Amino acid sequence: MPDAKLLETFPTPAETPFIVEHVCDEFTSVCPKTGHPDFGTITVRFQPRPAAVGGVCVELKALKLYFQSFRNEGIFYEAVTNRIRDDLAKLMNPAWMLIKTDWKGRGGFKSVIRAESGPVPDMWRQ
Amino acid sequence: MPDAKLLETFPTPAETPFIVEHVCDEFTSVCPKTGHPDFGTITVRFQPRPAAVGGVCVELKALKLYFQSFRNEGIFYEAVTNRIRDDLAKLMNPAWMLIKTDWKGRGGFKSVIRAESGPVPDMWRQ
Amino acid sequence: MPDAKLLETFPTPAETPFIVEHVCDEFTSVCPKTGHPDFGTITVRFQPRPAAVGGVCVELKALKLYFQSFRNEGIFYEAVTNRIRDDLAKLMNPAWMLIKTDWKGRGGFKSVIRAESGPVPDMWRQ
Amino acid sequence: MPDAKLLETFPTPAETPFIVEHVCDEFTSVCPKTGHPDFGTITVRFQPRPAAVGGVCVELKALKLYFQSFRNEGIFYEAVTNRIRDDLAKLMNPAWMLIKTDWKGRGGFKSVIRAESGPVPDMWRQ
Amino acid sequence: MPDAKLLETFPTPAETPFIVEHVCDEFTSVCPKTGHPDFGTITVRFQPRPAAVGGVCVELKALKLYFQSFRNEGIFYEAVTNRIRDDLAKLMNPAWMLIKTDWKGRGGFKSVIRAESGPVPDMWRQ
Amino acid sequence: MPDAKLLETFPTPAETPFIVEHVCDEFTSVCPKTGHPDFGTITVRFQPRPAAVGGVCVELKALKLYFQSFRNEGIFYEAVTNRIRDDLAKLMNPAWMLIKTDWKGRGGFKSVIRAESGPVPDMWRQ
Amino acid sequence: MPDAKLLETFPTPAETPFIVEHVCDEFTSVCPKTGHPDFGTITVRFQPRPAAVGGVCVELKALKLYFQSFRNEGIFYEAVTNRIRDDLAKLMNPAWMLIKTDWKGRGGFKSVIRAESGPVPDMWRQ
Amino acid sequence: MPDAKLLETFPTPAETPFIVEHVCDEFTSVCPKTGHPDFGTITVRFQPRPAAVGGVCVELKALKLYFQSFRNEGIFYEAVTNRIRDDLAKLMNPAWMLIKTDWKGRGGFKSVIRAESGPVPDMWRQ
Amino acid sequence: MPDAKLLETFPTPAETPFIVEHVCDEFTSVCPKTGHPDFGTITVRFQPRPAAVGGVCVELKALKLYFQSFRNEGIFYEAVTNRIRDDLAKLMNPAWMLIKTDWKGRGGFKSVIRAESGPVPDMWRQ
Amino acid sequence: MPDAKLLETFPTPAETPFIVEHVCDEFTSVCPKTGHPDFGTITVRFQPRPAAVGGVCVELKALKLYFQSFRNEGIFYEAVTNRIRDDLAKLMNPAWMLIKTDWKGRGGFKSVIRAESGPVPDMWRQ
Repeated sequence: MPDAKLLETFPTPAETPFIVEHVCDEFTSVCPKTGHPDFGTITVRFQPRPAAVGGVCVELKALKLYFQSFRNEGIFYEAVTNRIRDDLAKLMNPAWMLIKTDWKGRGGFKSVIRAESGPVPDMWRQ
Repeated sequence: MPDAKLLETFPTPAETPFIVEHVCDEFTSVCPKTGHPDFGTITVRFQPRPAAVGGVCVELKALKLYFQSFRNEGIFYEAVTNRIRDDLAKLMNPAWMLIKTDWKGRGGFKSVIRAESGPVPDMWRQ
Repeated sequence: MPDAKLLETFPTPAETPFIVEHVCDEFTSVCPKTGHPDFGTITVRFQPRPAAVGGVCVELKALKLYFQSFRNEGIFYEAVTNRIRDDLAKLMNPAWMLIKTDWKGRGGFKSVIRAESGPVPDMWRQ
Repeated sequence: MPDAKLLETFPTPAETPFIVEHVCDEFTSVCPKTGHPDFGTITVRFQPRPAAVGGVCVELKALKLYFQSFRNEGIFYEAVTNRIRDDLAKLMNPAWMLIKTDWKGRGGFKSVIRAESGPVPDMWRQ
Repeated sequence: MPDAKLLETFPTPAETPFIVEHVCDEFTSVCPKTGHPDFGTITVRFQPRPAAVGGVCVELKALKLYFQSFRNEGIFYEAVTNRIRDDLAKLMNPAWMLIKTDWKGRGGFKSVIRAESGPVPDMWRQ
Repeated sequence: MPDAKLLETFPTPAETPFIVEHVCDEFTSVCPKTGHPDFGTITVRFQPRPAAVGGVCVELKALKLYFQSFRNEGIFYEAVTNRIRDDLAKLMNPAWMLIKTDWKGRGGFKSVIRAESGPVPDMWRQ
Repeated sequence: MPDAKLLETFPTPAETPFIVEHVCDEFTSVCPKTGHPDFGTITVRFQPRPAAVGGVCVELKALKLYFQSFRNEGIFYEAVTNRIRDDLAKLMNPAWMLIKTDWKGRGGFKSVIRAESGPVPDMWRQ
Repeated sequence: MPDAKLLETFPTPAETPFIVEHVCDEFTSVCPKTGHPDFGTITVRFQPRPAAVGGVCVELKALKLYFQSFRNEGIFYEAVTNRIRDDLAKLMNPAWMLIKTDWKGRGGFKSVIRAESGPVPDMWRQ
Repeated sequence: MPDAKLLETFPTPAETPFIVEHVCDEFTSVCPKTGHPDFGTITVRFQPRPAAVGGVCVELKALKLYFQSFRNEGIFYEAVTNRIRDDLAKLMNPAWMLIKTDWKGRGGFKSVIRAESGPVPDMWRQ
Repeated sequence: MPDAKLLETFPTPAETPFIVEHVCDEFTSVCPKTGHPDFGTITVRFQPRPAAVGGVCVELKALKLYFQSFRNEGIFYEAVTNRIRDDLAKLMNPAWMLIKTDWKGRGGFKSVIRAESGPVPDMWRQ
């Protein structure tokens, strides 16, 4: 089952702002209604806080294990998205974060869910 | 014939704002002029209201059945788009919603119709 | 319901061999098991017999109406394919014909069915 | 020759704003300099005025015939674009309209011409 | 764990030869060495024997459940491929069958495994 | 109207066999049934006879003018294809020639017609 | 060598603002350091001044000859871009102009240079 | 090891603002944790200061050698990005600079890191 | 330096013939002439001998390490290809093997080298 | 002008057969009729003779200079193709060679010319 304790961080390696994006296209969970597996791509995009104020980044190998912990969980698209947003926002307290989940076709439908934390930095809007 | 009573909702699963997008590329209705079938892709993009104020999301399986109810209806592109916008806006009363319909080529033409409800959220503009 | 009487032909316009291919990407029928619509692309590829021996080609507008007659028919992929092959082979008695049906994703699966009539002409193998 | 009298309209089917886009990739006219045919794709994008103030939309079949009336006309890219903008703006008096013409390569060059009428609606800027 | 008893068949619906292809791009199993999930696309392509000699086709919904039974199995690429070939060949005794498995990147590598049963029919070679 | 007298040739510039392919994606004619324009791509592929036996190649500028002469001709897909094959075969007497015409979508259909003259050379089959 | 005297203009054919874009993907010059040829794509995008104030557009055939005049010139990417910007700005005195040059890979690098003249019109920002 | 002394500059060739972008898709370094090589694409986008105030541009051949100096360095994605930003900002003191690094898939993940220096120029925002 | 001792095998897991393909798009070596790095994609395609006659397959993790051992070797395209063919043919003694190396652009050129061992199996020719 | 003396070779580095392909997408010559530049992609594919019988391969840097020597030559597509075939066949005396030239669009036409030397090896036909 989803396990936020698998997550780890490392100190932000810079004082100047930067933006990190990790895209995992091997995510799978289970539809709680039908019991069939769901397959999706998860995008984690964030601006860590500066090192001087204790900013941290999520560690990539740990993020992978955390995502794998959803493998046999019965959970809806919207809940996956908000859960990841909540777990990572709590872990990193980033200046900004966007979670985007793109789900493969199911009966002719594709779905995309977006959840955010914090204001979009001007650096991203360009 | 198009039947809004097929639509169902579930309570918004989060207090923080998020955006949902469902894209159905298996939509078909009938041209009221020629009687020939029309084929299109329907995008439903919306920001539900927060749970605390009774926000709801459209249920995906019900949305599919609602779209299938247009199958043998003679109806123009513009009417399909405005009808879906009206039915879903009434159903969910979302903070924002965009309906986009992309229609396959007909005599060398492709058409796209967009209808909205509510102001575009800043989260989408990034 | 599928109606082969909608089909029409015209005499082959040449004595030398040639190959015709019509691809319709707006085919829809209904799954007899679930009642949900199926969407597919139908390829009709054939070499008509020469005019001198009474060769004919299927007329395109009539072929379109024939395909539309499957719209509300509950019928499996394999049966659609073999039915079209049988109806068109009977109509045209072509030197060679291939029917290929490509079906949109259903629960993670895409399917393609191929049925033939007559030997592949050397002209196609190049 | 280009004939604006071929154009027809129908009343805007909604009071709430929406945006229509018709893309025709089968446009051809003649270069007045060389006599060779030009091939292009024409995009007509507009926001009709609300029905309450007499807003109208261009009818698609009539638009097709209007575009076909350029077939043997010797006319430059820029003139095609401005002519269509003028004819359609006069016909519909839309809240906003953009005409975009994309021309196929000619001696290593591709060209795109854009002409507008009215202010871009906020709905489009998202 | 992989369970061939989930598989079901239906009688071949035609006496004339035809070829069926099912492509599932939502396959996942587990690497027995690292414990990490593997993601792949499975192609099942076969020519059923004619109905007159008891030919059968695999049922699509059952095939889906059979593939899902690999979800938490630790099993290598080559073993997945040969196991599916063996299970389906035993089930259908087809005139010809090809199993192709395409595996997503792992450390810079993509892998494809192909296993067959029976001679390639002339109809496929065209 | 189509005018084969526009065609010109030049002597094959080599004694050793080679293959020439000209692809024109700016072909248009008129449907004799509906009066609407048809748009297509024409492929001319041939192996000229050796210079020593009077082999010739079609001149590219002349081929362009010949294709433009179909612009306002009411003529079916199959007739265009066979007419071009006949005109060019008579002009060049090539060792081998293939004419392929690909027609843009019309009511959900795309069509491709192929006509040949002479046996496919081994050099092309590789 | 680059020769701005090859450039010609014609009067802007409209009083209302419009935007012209010419893209030439057959540009070549010579690297002054290595003597090897450089290959690039040049985009010229501009808004001409209205006819009433003497606005002009660059003539396409002349632009082609002007670009060809760089063929054997030893000149750096940045200099090509600024030279074209300067020559065309002087020629047309446009309300706005952007020159973009995209250069093919050289030792694993691709380069893009952008130079402007005048403020970006609101019409382009949509 | 990464060596900023390999970098060279040349004076900005224009007084008017322009934007330079170099994209290198042949970057490789080593993961300090696993010892396995990392492969990425590096984008350097900057607006040099005007020549009149001593503006300079990085020389392309020198930039290539500088990137090659990371080949056997054990260094994380974030550190590569910030190091390049720091070295090039110090070298050129540009009006604006963005470094973007896109890393190939590693265990189902792709990563993109962006770091900036200076305010985004209005010219880029269009 | 290239080290075939890094390679490992495992026994072929089936008696019936099958074909394995591993594609590594993260290969790099060094040009012995210029000292600049080369980047390529290596395809290893083989049919192992049956288990009964001692057939073996190359182990994927070991193959990765073997490829990494070319990282700082100065070696030409042709030599890389033939060296890998020789090392893997000696290791596995396969029924058939093809090594294909695709090299990224260098001065406007892309190169592909193919080397084989043993006759192409009929199973591959389909 | 085209200069075969620029070409150099090196001894085939293997006794077992292999196939080499060099693709140059930066070829330019001049149309002898119009004086306008032509742009094309040249593919050189060959199987060198074994080293034991004096087999040689063309050197890549020399091939590049040879291709650059066509830069200002007025020469037709067919002549470029046959000239390169003749020069390289004389230089390498390969077991098999194919020259393919793909030319960019000119007035709506793209052209491809193929010329060979020697019989296609079985290794290539797979």
